[in-house]
Amino acid sequence: VRRPRLSVDEYVQGVLQNNRTILAQTITLIESHSPIHMEVAQEVLKKLLPYTGQSIRVGITGVPGAGKSTTIEALGNMLCEKGHRVAVLAVDPSSTVTRGSILGDKTRMELLSRNPQAFIRPSASGGTLGGVSRKTRETMLVCEAAGYDVILVETVGVGQSEIAVRSMVDFFLLLMLTGAGDELQGIKKGVIEIADALLINKAEGDNKHRAMAAKAEFNRILHYLQPATEGWETKAYTCSALTGEGIEEIWSVVEKFRQITTQSGVLQDRRRTQTLEWVYNMVQDYLRTSFFCHPGVVQIMPQIEKEVVSGQLSPAMAVQQLLQSYEAGTR
Amino acid sequence: VRRPRLSVDEYVQGVLQNNRTILAQTITLIESHSPIHMEVAQEVLKKLLPYTGQSIRVGITGVPGAGKSTTIEALGNMLCEKGHRVAVLAVDPSSTVTRGSILGDKTRMELLSRNPQAFIRPSASGGTLGGVSRKTRETMLVCEAAGYDVILVETVGVGQSEIAVRSMVDFFLLLMLTGAGDELQGIKKGVIEIADALLINKAEGDNKHRAMAAKAEFNRILHYLQPATEGWETKAYTCSALTGEGIEEIWSVVEKFRQITTQSGVLQDRRRTQTLEWVYNMVQDYLRTSFFCHPGVVQIMPQIEKEVVSGQLSPAMAVQQLLQSYEAGTR
Repeated sequence: VRRPRLSVDEYVQGVLQNNRTILAQTITLIESHSPIHMEVAQEVLKKLLPYTGQSIRVGITGVPGAGKSTTIEALGNMLCEKGHRVAVLAVDPSSTVTRGSILGDKTRMELLSRNPQAFIRPSASGGTLGGVSRKTRETMLVCEAAGYDVILVETVGVGQSEIAVRSMVDFFLLLMLTGAGDELQGIKKGVIEIADALLINKAEGDNKHRAMAAKAEFNRILHYLQPATEGWETKAYTCSALTGEGIEEIWSVVEKFRQITTQSGVLQDRRRTQTLEWVYNMVQDYLRTSFFCHPGVVQIMPQIEKEVVSGQLSPAMAVQQLLQSYEAGTR
Repeated sequence: VRRPRLSVDEYVQGVLQNNRTILAQTITLIESHSPIHMEVAQEVLKKLLPYTGQSIRVGITGVPGAGKSTTIEALGNMLCEKGHRVAVLAVDPSSTVTRGSILGDKTRMELLSRNPQAFIRPSASGGTLGGVSRKTRETMLVCEAAGYDVILVETVGVGQSEIAVRSMVDFFLLLMLTGAGDELQGIKKGVIEIADALLINKAEGDNKHRAMAAKAEFNRILHYLQPATEGWETKAYTCSALTGEGIEEIWSVVEKFRQITTQSGVLQDRRRTQTLEWVYNMVQDYLRTSFFCHPGVVQIMPQIEKEVVSGQLSPAMAVQQLLQSYEAGTR
């Protein structure tokens, strides 16, 4: 791995001038696993930090088939028409081989991907959810520094990725299928409860009355749940990404959310907390990895697990033995 | 702090013979913060481990006023009459001063507390949720060794205590109030989704039809949620702890659950996973504490947090600086 071609200042200036080539190169730098690239990326990021934080950050998730791509396409184009600059990112820890499975196929957002006011970046490839989240967060900051004032972060419902996205955005939108019933069993546990709005797509033609019924049904369920954001009521809405109906309305919900939570200070608190928790989580990831990959721990772990499960060793004793072999190796 | 009066073998024999005085003393030993007590407690626990695991472990939570104590009293007495031996424990990290706030007042379970087949132990006093959970788990094991074949673990809806109890029991029961509506807003996020059954109490007199309506309503909601246990459908039931109606029925649900999950192996898997996760969590608690209480880390943390929040320092750089001062101190 060679040193990056550009200097730190060249990356910084390129991003600030929204040079799309340099913006893409900066993100590639952030996604790199090479120590020298990571070092340069952190220096670039440090200089860009003062220019970040001015966007509205929206997370979007939904069951497969709910129409995430078409909704983002419709929403993104509408926002560009209104003069916004829109960056679309993705968190998809499942894409270990190809470069991002969910946004990889740009033809799925054909118009938006050719819009000069939009910037679409597929998910960082490979790595753990923690690694992918870090890269997405840092990519989000770089896009903000490049002047994008709307960041849309898409995720598929894989494992803990919704929680990861919730922890980096202001507003979290859950896309749903029309109709209520068994097809909705696909909704992951707890996802409804972290959403700031539910959006029922495909409210068009014959399906419209089913979408309205689903909306009423979800509003009933939401009534039993605590809202995801203090001082904000999570509600269900309908739209048709196909006809564009409801797309302006859902954005006005996001704008109202921003206004209310900014006035109450909830938004600023959320961002502060998100940033600090990110730091703490990175520290804990490091500590965990350092422990569970420690040669002494790796060596005795299978035996310890066996003895604990069979009841020969108490959990507290197991912990003691594990910590002893960890500390013997590090001191 | 002096050495415990009894020898390890005296504690072990006392527990195995279900000597209630020695059982209580063993639990006190487990709850002690003194290193010598903890050491003896671990030796006792080690010798008791082969005699554990034979009970059915049931967690019980509910909104304030749902009637947890009266339900446990009714359920416990019914089980004793059927020949079971019942231990009632509590996880209540909120009780930092008094010795357990939820079961402290034994008059709330007047009959059960005088039943020779029952053993009621208030929550361990003080400490973090992690500490309280460890003590409750170990107390549960000691009660099993003493021959209690039903363990009921009660918790109030404080912070993460439901999750802690869910992680140590086979079956998790959520007590609800009758009627549907605003009074149910008190249900904590995600608690419905970790329950194996919802039990609507106070289904008596004029309230009975409201309880039936609430049951139907909750069954509708449960339809949208993934069940907490693989191969088991979480449903809502009604009871009256006052008249005893529905108490036998809810226990037959628990027994059916045990039978189905034992046959499928889900119960055994759950216990194995719970035990190993307990070990991993204790390790991570230790690592976290060791880091965040490290003098070097404590010293620079306020400045780091300030710089991260104000945007002067990137989260990744913050982590690097924190880890440097941690490792400088430990090596």
